[in-house]
Amino acid sequence: MCIEQRKAHEECGVFGIFSNEKSDTARTVYYALYALQHRGQESSGIAVGDRSEKRLVYHKDLGLVGDVFSPERLASMRGDMAIGHVRYASKEQNTRENAQPFSINYNKGTVSLAFNGTILNLDELKSSLQKQGAVFQTTGDAEVIAHLVAHERFRCGSIEEALALAVPQIKGTFSMLVMSPMKLIAVRDPAGIRPLCMGTMPNGSVVFASESCALQAIGAKLERDVEPGEMVVVTEDGVTSRRVGEARPALCIFEHIYIARPDSVIDGESVYEARLQAGRILAKYRPADADIVIGAPDSGVVAAIGFAEESGIPYREGLIRNRYIGRTFIQPQQGQRTQSVSIKLGAIEHNVRGRRVVLVDDSIVRGTTMAQTVNFLRDAGAAEVHVRIASPEFLWQCFYGTDIPSRDQLASVRFDKEQFLMMIGADSLEWLPLEHLGEVAKNSKVSFCDACFSGKYPIE
Amino acid sequence: MCIEQRKAHEECGVFGIFSNEKSDTARTVYYALYALQHRGQESSGIAVGDRSEKRLVYHKDLGLVGDVFSPERLASMRGDMAIGHVRYASKEQNTRENAQPFSINYNKGTVSLAFNGTILNLDELKSSLQKQGAVFQTTGDAEVIAHLVAHERFRCGSIEEALALAVPQIKGTFSMLVMSPMKLIAVRDPAGIRPLCMGTMPNGSVVFASESCALQAIGAKLERDVEPGEMVVVTEDGVTSRRVGEARPALCIFEHIYIARPDSVIDGESVYEARLQAGRILAKYRPADADIVIGAPDSGVVAAIGFAEESGIPYREGLIRNRYIGRTFIQPQQGQRTQSVSIKLGAIEHNVRGRRVVLVDDSIVRGTTMAQTVNFLRDAGAAEVHVRIASPEFLWQCFYGTDIPSRDQLASVRFDKEQFLMMIGADSLEWLPLEHLGEVAKNSKVSFCDACFSGKYPIE
Amino acid sequence: MCIEQRKAHEECGVFGIFSNEKSDTARTVYYALYALQHRGQESSGIAVGDRSEKRLVYHKDLGLVGDVFSPERLASMRGDMAIGHVRYASKEQNTRENAQPFSINYNKGTVSLAFNGTILNLDELKSSLQKQGAVFQTTGDAEVIAHLVAHERFRCGSIEEALALAVPQIKGTFSMLVMSPMKLIAVRDPAGIRPLCMGTMPNGSVVFASESCALQAIGAKLERDVEPGEMVVVTEDGVTSRRVGEARPALCIFEHIYIARPDSVIDGESVYEARLQAGRILAKYRPADADIVIGAPDSGVVAAIGFAEESGIPYREGLIRNRYIGRTFIQPQQGQRTQSVSIKLGAIEHNVRGRRVVLVDDSIVRGTTMAQTVNFLRDAGAAEVHVRIASPEFLWQCFYGTDIPSRDQLASVRFDKEQFLMMIGADSLEWLPLEHLGEVAKNSKVSFCDACFSGKYPIE
Amino acid sequence: MCIEQRKAHEECGVFGIFSNEKSDTARTVYYALYALQHRGQESSGIAVGDRSEKRLVYHKDLGLVGDVFSPERLASMRGDMAIGHVRYASKEQNTRENAQPFSINYNKGTVSLAFNGTILNLDELKSSLQKQGAVFQTTGDAEVIAHLVAHERFRCGSIEEALALAVPQIKGTFSMLVMSPMKLIAVRDPAGIRPLCMGTMPNGSVVFASESCALQAIGAKLERDVEPGEMVVVTEDGVTSRRVGEARPALCIFEHIYIARPDSVIDGESVYEARLQAGRILAKYRPADADIVIGAPDSGVVAAIGFAEESGIPYREGLIRNRYIGRTFIQPQQGQRTQSVSIKLGAIEHNVRGRRVVLVDDSIVRGTTMAQTVNFLRDAGAAEVHVRIASPEFLWQCFYGTDIPSRDQLASVRFDKEQFLMMIGADSLEWLPLEHLGEVAKNSKVSFCDACFSGKYPIE
Repeated sequence: MCIEQRKAHEECGVFGIFSNEKSDTARTVYYALYALQHRGQESSGIAVGDRSEKRLVYHKDLGLVGDVFSPERLASMRGDMAIGHVRYASKEQNTRENAQPFSINYNKGTVSLAFNGTILNLDELKSSLQKQGAVFQTTGDAEVIAHLVAHERFRCGSIEEALALAVPQIKGTFSMLVMSPMKLIAVRDPAGIRPLCMGTMPNGSVVFASESCALQAIGAKLERDVEPGEMVVVTEDGVTSRRVGEARPALCIFEHIYIARPDSVIDGESVYEARLQAGRILAKYRPADADIVIGAPDSGVVAAIGFAEESGIPYREGLIRNRYIGRTFIQPQQGQRTQSVSIKLGAIEHNVRGRRVVLVDDSIVRGTTMAQTVNFLRDAGAAEVHVRIASPEFLWQCFYGTDIPSRDQLASVRFDKEQFLMMIGADSLEWLPLEHLGEVAKNSKVSFCDACFSGKYPIE
Repeated sequence: MCIEQRKAHEECGVFGIFSNEKSDTARTVYYALYALQHRGQESSGIAVGDRSEKRLVYHKDLGLVGDVFSPERLASMRGDMAIGHVRYASKEQNTRENAQPFSINYNKGTVSLAFNGTILNLDELKSSLQKQGAVFQTTGDAEVIAHLVAHERFRCGSIEEALALAVPQIKGTFSMLVMSPMKLIAVRDPAGIRPLCMGTMPNGSVVFASESCALQAIGAKLERDVEPGEMVVVTEDGVTSRRVGEARPALCIFEHIYIARPDSVIDGESVYEARLQAGRILAKYRPADADIVIGAPDSGVVAAIGFAEESGIPYREGLIRNRYIGRTFIQPQQGQRTQSVSIKLGAIEHNVRGRRVVLVDDSIVRGTTMAQTVNFLRDAGAAEVHVRIASPEFLWQCFYGTDIPSRDQLASVRFDKEQFLMMIGADSLEWLPLEHLGEVAKNSKVSFCDACFSGKYPIE
Repeated sequence: MCIEQRKAHEECGVFGIFSNEKSDTARTVYYALYALQHRGQESSGIAVGDRSEKRLVYHKDLGLVGDVFSPERLASMRGDMAIGHVRYASKEQNTRENAQPFSINYNKGTVSLAFNGTILNLDELKSSLQKQGAVFQTTGDAEVIAHLVAHERFRCGSIEEALALAVPQIKGTFSMLVMSPMKLIAVRDPAGIRPLCMGTMPNGSVVFASESCALQAIGAKLERDVEPGEMVVVTEDGVTSRRVGEARPALCIFEHIYIARPDSVIDGESVYEARLQAGRILAKYRPADADIVIGAPDSGVVAAIGFAEESGIPYREGLIRNRYIGRTFIQPQQGQRTQSVSIKLGAIEHNVRGRRVVLVDDSIVRGTTMAQTVNFLRDAGAAEVHVRIASPEFLWQCFYGTDIPSRDQLASVRFDKEQFLMMIGADSLEWLPLEHLGEVAKNSKVSFCDACFSGKYPIE
Repeated sequence: MCIEQRKAHEECGVFGIFSNEKSDTARTVYYALYALQHRGQESSGIAVGDRSEKRLVYHKDLGLVGDVFSPERLASMRGDMAIGHVRYASKEQNTRENAQPFSINYNKGTVSLAFNGTILNLDELKSSLQKQGAVFQTTGDAEVIAHLVAHERFRCGSIEEALALAVPQIKGTFSMLVMSPMKLIAVRDPAGIRPLCMGTMPNGSVVFASESCALQAIGAKLERDVEPGEMVVVTEDGVTSRRVGEARPALCIFEHIYIARPDSVIDGESVYEARLQAGRILAKYRPADADIVIGAPDSGVVAAIGFAEESGIPYREGLIRNRYIGRTFIQPQQGQRTQSVSIKLGAIEHNVRGRRVVLVDDSIVRGTTMAQTVNFLRDAGAAEVHVRIASPEFLWQCFYGTDIPSRDQLASVRFDKEQFLMMIGADSLEWLPLEHLGEVAKNSKVSFCDACFSGKYPIE
């Protein structure tokens, strides 16, 4: 999928560290969040705990991690534990109050949370807590979890007991990090729709991250994934693990297709390899007669390389992305000839002119960007444009994190094949067949949720 | 060459438009500058002229074009001609005063200049002008040119006459755009070291740009290059051309190797094709026994694809670039294990681990970034790392635009082969042989300056 | 007291409006907060309610009201009720989270609070609420009040019932405004240490404010003060009043001496007149043999005019304040001759040179600024400097809002008269005698708290 | 004159220092500019020279001195000479390019200028210089002076010679500071319409300032005024003086009436005393039957005190100014009842209600603010309002620095007495009689320009 729809599937990113010494933990989180920024650009935050002083400080705000944290701010946040969060949010919820980590003070001390996921029974939980006197200040998920934990903690002996009681009450999917005055806890829901992994620093500090690319960034070693339904507790006495639900794994297949960074490994499978494999399978079952293969930047590039390998058609870069387009970019006005796509992308005419082109992308949501891209390639002289999508048709709404409101916005629902072809202006259009999706990430230790393609939802 | 040394060779970018109607010319320049931003990120500016009102307005400041121009500012700058500039500057000269376009008011009216180049006899020209009473307010080249033009204009009948008299006095190399109250003029010095091309908009407006990618961005058609030693004058009566010096073409070979965007075509040669070809030649004359070929992002990628094709070794992405690293990034502190390179790049371990890797880059200047990159690949499990550079050894200083102060900073000057290998920690290291450089851009209509490799300088 | 210690006694300011129509209520609050800004410069906020849509929006941040609200922000906040707050805060509590109004969502809807005061049993209340499951996110008073109200509201039929139950549990002093989905409520504690008044707009809208100067600013008429121990409830059915505690009035005497704006009238007494009267009494009981009377800007000026009138010595301006000193002012470095005071104040040498000067100020806390001011007057040529303070000696800590941590920082506690004189370098130093303090604000309908002078605290 | 028209007469401020040692000269200028900020709020700048290194650095921008200079910036500007400037500018000229000090590089080195004044023959000078090849980049006066000086310097032996030749060519009025590589020079035009004084620091450094209040701020001693037509040259050999024109003194009377700070002494006369005296004379010749005298803040206050003394009517503060109104203040919208004046000023009703008030202001330009102020006092209950203006009627345009475009905007030109009274809504309105203006500043060593009252212009 191309630049425009990028926001459709993005997700939050979490990171946590339990260090042996009071040190620059905030700085480590800062660098890790840079590596997770692709999972959320709306807000960034870090909470730092100090076990000896029983002190918690945090800072969070709207913006990228580089905008939210100054050198002075980072230097002022010292401690021996820390969690961080980058957030993607639908527009209405994109308020400073909803930024994470979310921290509270209750009768047993403090708790900070970094949460990546979706709670399906949020209203019920909220209403039930309010009936017991709870008072809410935000519209975010994390506040409800915090209340739930505090509520359970009230009647049991430890924060992990409280979490073990709270998790089964949550219908939904999440990976989260919880920092109490003396502990760092990682929890992944039984379906494990969102990834979460664990690593160690050279000095023995334990870290958790949404994706392994964050471990690499800070020089940590990937030890293993937190398993669906597992809770990992780190204290000064070491690391322990317990079950908080029976695993029924259903990792979001879009993590491999689009969301995660290609240098991450999730549940045993390389994201790069999964994308390469998707391209190969696509070429095998949905070949095209063409001169070159190009990828839609940046998300279609790896699959395009795979497609080229399998098909024997040479891979070329046909479109390059302008890296300077940012938040301050002023959109071309309606009626101006200049199309947004021609500024955001550059076509390498030398490769494209007179050629029959296979354009590989990861997915199509509304189809408008694809139409512009195909048109742009034709302007650059492409003789034919064959669109190949490295995932099955997007037919069903996602309830576990995507921002798309309803099925009637999905191009694959609105159009039949002929209309679709006409709309995007391509010579042919094919998707990776749903029946062959299982061949994509064969090294994965977990099963997948493919509800957006199949309509089979793993959680009611 | 990798991220760190990126600044070593960057150049300015210029763009100009002569429109048939008073309109959003500033907006067109704005989008074109986005496409030229890779040529300079220190300052951005636009000057707009109005032929009927004889009015000139301009705005320029330190920063990227997206930071310097607000929607209100753009909307306030209306006219039927405009020029724009993005600037790369060595640190000491990076002041707001030196930003371009540079505009003056003299006894014949106003003149605005957008200048990309280097004046070798700057001090002489300045001193000579000062002796005739000139007063300077900046340390920039453009101010000297403006004075020179104003000085000559004083004793001849037109701005183009003045330019024709001024250009021969300038020892150096430049492409520049000059906007007078009624004319837009493009000039390229006889050596034509910096590129400059010309195009037309669908409505007939004439445009000039440092690179053709800017034409594509705004929907203009590339008509031809401005030739070395040519001056093109656009007035309401049409386009005329005249010679301002005998052409002795010497296009900077680094435009193809590193500076220009791969979707640009310069003097008849596709930059993408030139890089691909450099990779192929490198593979032919300096092969490596390896499992995969990867490119140093982003400047080594195209050559890596060419190397892979010629050698038959599969191309893989081994390193990806973190696109969120920007001006606000806080560098890791000395002594922190976290290396800057591990945050800026991510290694795709799946591709690299246990493999013998060919790492292709466009050039090596100081060598420090290459050392970090090789080390980073080893950390990611590479069995062997064979560095291949898609240009000859960088041995001589460039007097025509680069920022490197002296030869003693160049790794190829400081180290013999063995030391160099040890310094960067690679298993082998080879460059594109100087004698085969001529095979790189064979479609180019002009000859090249390769002084940085050969020591043969085209201008004394 | 002079500029430096200004922060010692400042307080928050609150404002509320219940309008008959959905309109620019936020804008009205905005202007009113400008008039109350002297009561708090650390943070500013406005919450707007819409009775028909049952909607609550708010915005608050660190900074002056002019910095926190943009025209766009103001325009986006429409409704028929609103409350606002400006906050003074000790440094450690000066966080964005503690800014007010404070808004929550609980099982009966929403509640917003603007609170000016101090809760003495804050820890007890917090701990008691936490034991019942409450979860806190800030360190502010307002959050505790909100929880208390939500807690009581849970078991009674209306928000005013809940307030009536909550108020007696609070040991402390406060004036506060509470906005529920359909009501605006003003409450002043039984001691009434902080002021609160009520007015009407020409269109019949009801308004409340910490000081009457805010009513004047928006064109409202001062109707009366909210009485100590009174709760005023405004609904669409009109205004009703009820008791929430037996009045035992003890208005903070520092409101008249220093905190309030001289154009305000508090509990029937003009602040200007009270200060003028303090100057007269001071002159009567502590005369000085001098040539001119000057006031320390700005807080000593009115008392200086009163002193001049009573004594017959002419009033002159001897010191003027630089109005451009703001947050960005860079303090002179230690060792630099330039004293901060000489930049912040200017001495009118013409008035001072060779003269015996009476310098009137409202109070002395640490004494350091007074020492600098006396020294500065001597530099300007004053023959003698006789310091007269328009309030009694500051001997006891204030528990009801001041920022001074302990008695041992008070100059009057640390020094005997001789030491004090030497420290500030004056020729004589006198205070308004405590036994005559009662003559200062004789028109006031309420008694005063003078604990900081007398040590007699009205609340245990 | 009240807040609204404040800008009508403001002027620039200049400051310079020649130090014995390389030190924090920029910091000294910074503090001095704070004291001169009332003379110009549009832009601020400092240029620092280093005599041994022959180095000149400067920084200037739109904004108050506190906004333009950061601690880092100040610390980076070290040297043994410096000049500074604060600028008031009419809107169209308020560009960053026109900010001062203005610095150039010419064949004899560098020159920096800080200029306060108006050049009447600017166009002629500019045109003449352009004919000799000069090239201009700004629309400011300072650039023309710089060119003129550079031009003359070309044919004579020293910068002071060049100045001596340049000054007679300038028709106009100015006080200016010129810094060359080794000298600091102060020049005041023969009419001396703008003030300029000279002082010494305790360590012997020589300083110049537009007003003596800047000397006091930095701990310098006022030595004397630079005389009309005098040039003072400071070098390492000491201070010398020479004539650059025959003195025909005509100090702007508005400096005493309105522009200067009351703690300044100009040409031997205390500004405070001049204003006090104006109030006394006004009371003597234009008495009023009233209960209290109040001043329009802040410019009418001193005259009001003088009026009160002479008349025996008690002085009271009736209006206080809101010190938080700044650049970010959002103006009330048309049709809103809230008048701008009620937010900017507060009326002390206690003093005003039922009283017959004399309202003293320094001048009336358009009359609109005065009308609002009178209305505001009536709203606050004033029984009668008698307006007394402490200067004669403003009948003629000023060509020497004021921003008023034409006579037809002056209330005294547009209205006869009856209309004027009706327009402002006062019970009576009187000015200081022109024939008694001479009694106002009797200690002044120089004569005055009173062209705005008398129509007698000292310079053609």
